[in-house]
Amino acid sequence: MTIKTVGIIGGGQLARMLALAGIPLGYKFIFLDTYAECPAGDLGEVILAQYDDQEKLIELANRCDVLTFDFENVPASALNEIVKQVSFHPSAEALKTAQDRLSEKTLFQELGISTPEFLNIESNDDIEKAKDFPFPAILKTRRFGYDGKGQVRISSSTELIEAWNELGNTACLLEGFVKFDFEVSQVAVRDVKGNIEFYPLTENRHENGILIESNAPYVNSVLESLAQTFTKNLLEHFDYVGVLAIEFFVNGNSLIINEMAPRVHNSGHWTIEGTLSSQFENHIRAITGLPLGDTFAICKAKMINCLGEMPNREESLKDASAHYHDYAKEPRPGRKVGHITYLSKL
Amino acid sequence: MTIKTVGIIGGGQLARMLALAGIPLGYKFIFLDTYAECPAGDLGEVILAQYDDQEKLIELANRCDVLTFDFENVPASALNEIVKQVSFHPSAEALKTAQDRLSEKTLFQELGISTPEFLNIESNDDIEKAKDFPFPAILKTRRFGYDGKGQVRISSSTELIEAWNELGNTACLLEGFVKFDFEVSQVAVRDVKGNIEFYPLTENRHENGILIESNAPYVNSVLESLAQTFTKNLLEHFDYVGVLAIEFFVNGNSLIINEMAPRVHNSGHWTIEGTLSSQFENHIRAITGLPLGDTFAICKAKMINCLGEMPNREESLKDASAHYHDYAKEPRPGRKVGHITYLSKL
Repeated sequence: MTIKTVGIIGGGQLARMLALAGIPLGYKFIFLDTYAECPAGDLGEVILAQYDDQEKLIELANRCDVLTFDFENVPASALNEIVKQVSFHPSAEALKTAQDRLSEKTLFQELGISTPEFLNIESNDDIEKAKDFPFPAILKTRRFGYDGKGQVRISSSTELIEAWNELGNTACLLEGFVKFDFEVSQVAVRDVKGNIEFYPLTENRHENGILIESNAPYVNSVLESLAQTFTKNLLEHFDYVGVLAIEFFVNGNSLIINEMAPRVHNSGHWTIEGTLSSQFENHIRAITGLPLGDTFAICKAKMINCLGEMPNREESLKDASAHYHDYAKEPRPGRKVGHITYLSKL
Repeated sequence: MTIKTVGIIGGGQLARMLALAGIPLGYKFIFLDTYAECPAGDLGEVILAQYDDQEKLIELANRCDVLTFDFENVPASALNEIVKQVSFHPSAEALKTAQDRLSEKTLFQELGISTPEFLNIESNDDIEKAKDFPFPAILKTRRFGYDGKGQVRISSSTELIEAWNELGNTACLLEGFVKFDFEVSQVAVRDVKGNIEFYPLTENRHENGILIESNAPYVNSVLESLAQTFTKNLLEHFDYVGVLAIEFFVNGNSLIINEMAPRVHNSGHWTIEGTLSSQFENHIRAITGLPLGDTFAICKAKMINCLGEMPNREESLKDASAHYHDYAKEPRPGRKVGHITYLSKL
């Protein structure tokens, strides 16, 4: 089948950048979003609906030749119906696993990837068991967390019950603090035939759980080899098609996995200008059955997230190496509204 | 004034690529075109109208903060009205000059830029005068020619009257053949403050007057210096804002000008991937009053035009360095429907 139309569940900045990369390939885009003026709205039709609106999701599926998502919290029940209707990438299984920190961490351990120490907290019994847990730690909701939301830091077991109350006694994961030097992420892509391309490692800086800055390529052959092995294991486990991003803590020569995102990722935004084929282009190529483009770095890049509101465009571009990415979002404190990538020769 | 909406007269592939580069900067686009399904139609609203429809052109002007064009043959009468309503770049004067081969060549000579020998042909008297012209030569309509259309090759003066009849006895320019080694083009951009950035020279191959292939960067410091001097003279003559492209014949260490295009140009398509900031991004930056981005090459590039119909997408992308640009145009023999850029390390 010749693919003409790509559907994206969610019309945020990731969908916007996917469409910007996919339109030159000759594709049309349709987005499903709760907001008509969503960032991707400039680049195709928006079907207005809640993400669990089965009827509208099926309308999207019927009108598109392949579906993907930029919004991770699509309910599993809705997914189960969609995948019967249309080709859906990356695998619903990967999405479901990533939606639950417990499933995710359990799988990482099964695949031999080091994780922080963790404990499932969903009952008072579990709180009891946590007495021996090595504090300080972080209590995180198992589902629906992003950008540091749904997380409470805990310095001793006596604070645990209060933190759990604060998070609404929902299913949580207690995670041990990890001693680390810095954070890196591995973005990779796998095509329908099983070919994998790895992007260079990216060094990331977070503040309050939000990515602030990425620097790439981060060159370290030992860490690259480790990151690629772990990533390959995950990609093959899911028979994954599309872009997968994994965040790691670096401690000396070892990597401890933090989390995975079954989609294009903020720490890969620098690939738009900094590599031969961006994460957005390669995700679209992969899910539409095309061969992958080269992923090596052609520039050094520093990506800075714009939080709250966009900085002045003219001022920002006085640096002739700067590339300004405005997601066309309403300003709101702490909200990711854009990013700027600064480039230099390799 | 903060610019929010950019209007483009013409919604072809150049408008499409301008919008793809301008949307990340946070701009909205409106196009005026005769065809709702025009290549730029995926990227903004299309006002359906003929290019001389004064009323619709003024509607476009009123709804946009700045206007530019991807279609060169906007009638001068229409332009005169528009420029009273809205900021219009590049200058209407440059556009009018480029619309007439006689004005264009006359200006080149005034600015000290070598041209092929030429003679204005618009009467039987002019035909008489051509007796002494050094044949072989090409008779070209002064207006509305593109991609080799409106041109007849002539080997001796006896063929001239027949050729002029063939071209409808419209105003023509008789141009002497130029002995040349190959062709290069210079793409450059000037901002509202008068700053100029030059792209690397591009080596071009034409067949039957249509660009087939570009290779860049073409490195030759003597020719670069000459091309930049000529281009600077033209940019400053017009107090030009935006991208200007100039095609030259190369003969040893000298450049003979062929023509100028007061817009982004097919021979600059490789800059999308091959330079730090593409011609499309820099045109949008310039006309919206932003500083220019760096224009140096970050890759070697070979751009191949796709004529008639697009080659198979999957086959084309088996070369992992390939970038596929489908303009979403209906196939038609000889029509430019897309391009593919192949990249390699510098």
